[in-house]
Amino acid sequence: MKLAMLYEGKAKKVYKTDQPNELLIDYKDDATAFNAEKKAVLAGKGQLNNDISALIFEKLTKAGVKNHFIRKLSDTEQLVSAVTIIPLEVIVRNVAAGSMAKRLGIEEGKPLERTIIEFCYKRDDLGDPLVTEDHIFELGLATTEELQAIRQQASKVNDVLSQYFDDLGIQLIDFKLEFGRKQENGELILADEVSPDTCRLWDKVTGEKLDKDVFRRDLGDLPTTYRKLLERLGAAQ
Amino acid sequence: MKLAMLYEGKAKKVYKTDQPNELLIDYKDDATAFNAEKKAVLAGKGQLNNDISALIFEKLTKAGVKNHFIRKLSDTEQLVSAVTIIPLEVIVRNVAAGSMAKRLGIEEGKPLERTIIEFCYKRDDLGDPLVTEDHIFELGLATTEELQAIRQQASKVNDVLSQYFDDLGIQLIDFKLEFGRKQENGELILADEVSPDTCRLWDKVTGEKLDKDVFRRDLGDLPTTYRKLLERLGAAQ
Ligand SMILES: Nc1ncnc2c1ncn2[C@@H]1O[C@H](COP(=O)(O)OP(=O)(O)OP(=O)(O)O)[C@@H](O)[C@H]1O
Ligand SMILES: Nc1ncnc2c1ncn2[C@@H]1O[C@H](COP(=O)(O)OP(=O)(O)OP(=O)(O)O)[C@@H](O)[C@H]1O
Ligand SMILES: [Mg+2]
Ligand SMILES: [Mg+2]
Repeated sequence: MKLAMLYEGKAKKVYKTDQPNELLIDYKDDATAFNAEKKAVLAGKGQLNNDISALIFEKLTKAGVKNHFIRKLSDTEQLVSAVTIIPLEVIVRNVAAGSMAKRLGIEEGKPLERTIIEFCYKRDDLGDPLVTEDHIFELGLATTEELQAIRQQASKVNDVLSQYFDDLGIQLIDFKLEFGRKQENGELILADEVSPDTCRLWDKVTGEKLDKDVFRRDLGDLPTTYRKLLERLGAAQ
Repeated sequence: MKLAMLYEGKAKKVYKTDQPNELLIDYKDDATAFNAEKKAVLAGKGQLNNDISALIFEKLTKAGVKNHFIRKLSDTEQLVSAVTIIPLEVIVRNVAAGSMAKRLGIEEGKPLERTIIEFCYKRDDLGDPLVTEDHIFELGLATTEELQAIRQQASKVNDVLSQYFDDLGIQLIDFKLEFGRKQENGELILADEVSPDTCRLWDKVTGEKLDKDVFRRDLGDLPTTYRKLLERLGAAQ
């Protein structure tokens, strides 16, 4: 079933399977930050993100957001639909934090007047630069229709997940999505992962960070944090 | 007539005048690049930019683009309408060059499919970061209507100046504009300067650079270059 490795990223390994349109994703224990300048291996992280991402994709599927998740295969592995990734990081922000707060001189934690969707060009060698829609078209990364569909789906994901986390006493500050065109028919679907590696999640009462900022900013033990989060999510099933 | 200095920038000094809605701009000989990391005093530059900017503003006025230029006062000085500057660098690009080429990994000199307008937040302390329209609204820098008017006027400036330079055998690669709200009535007009400090201009035949890249990249003597440009513009009057 698990055939040749297609590529190894910073957080996941992607394998071919015996089904041409299905891939196996293996979540690694590696943690990286700041364009891989900071690195660590954190035992249990892969399994936790595999579990959390699976729960979130299932939630999104129920809410009608088409995505690549098919099913969990093992502690660290999940089966997904093969897509051609659109090389854009789609960042959805409800509260100013991270790179946006820093770039624009906005205080971290300031609620935004309106949800902001940003696009960064997925090019590690260029440091994933922020791009405007004009840049996206110039680079031929997506069509007008695709970009509109991406915005709409990203916004839907935000609505669904903001409510989901809110019910658990957690505020969804921001998150990063990747979309792709399904190998079999070109359909645009959500891919990659949705996990505390790719979301900022703050406890609504204590403000405690339940995401990768714990690693980026040395705020505590990452697997312990992710385990707490998974427990809160698990309780919501 | 020339009263207290209001502020001194990297390229110009701005003075009050005895007219409350008019300011005097004195073009300096200072050249700076890379957010003022590279600096020089280049004799004659102020006078050349005062002359060139005056010629270009007159051209734009004739073409119906409202701008702050009233008249030249001396070799290095011009009288302008006082505005509250909108803190956006409005960058219009016909050909990939400079920061855009570098950020996106596009070869310098590649003609763009369509003219691209970029906005950077004028904040030296933040390095004038690129912003999207969402960021502009979040920061309260301009209204939707103002941004639409800015895009339209920037596009008109591009049409007028591309033709103007083309007739002189020069290609307008890109340029930076600043807009402001007129002190007396809030009307949005073009302000600041339009000069080889703020445009990229390439000879259509030889490819020779006729702009500040000569200084940025140590390609020759800047005042000599600007003098050549002024002669070509002067011949067009
Ligand atoms: N359904 C899918 N089909 C094909 N590729 C996918 C799918 N889902 C995710 N990928 C890709 O798998 C790769 C490995 O993921 P990982 O998160 O480890 O990458 P990464 O090192 O973070 O690199 P990147 O900066 O490109 O995200 C990524 O390039 C991701 O875009
Ligand atoms: N008509 C005007 N009324 C008021 N201020 C103006 C007008 N035209 C230009 N300015 C401002 O005059 C200042 C001085 O110009 P200069 O080009 O030297 O600034 P600078 O050092 O380049 O700073 P900046 O990065 O803000 O452009 C700038 O802040 C510019 O925006
Ligand atoms: Mg990734
Ligand atoms: Mg300036």
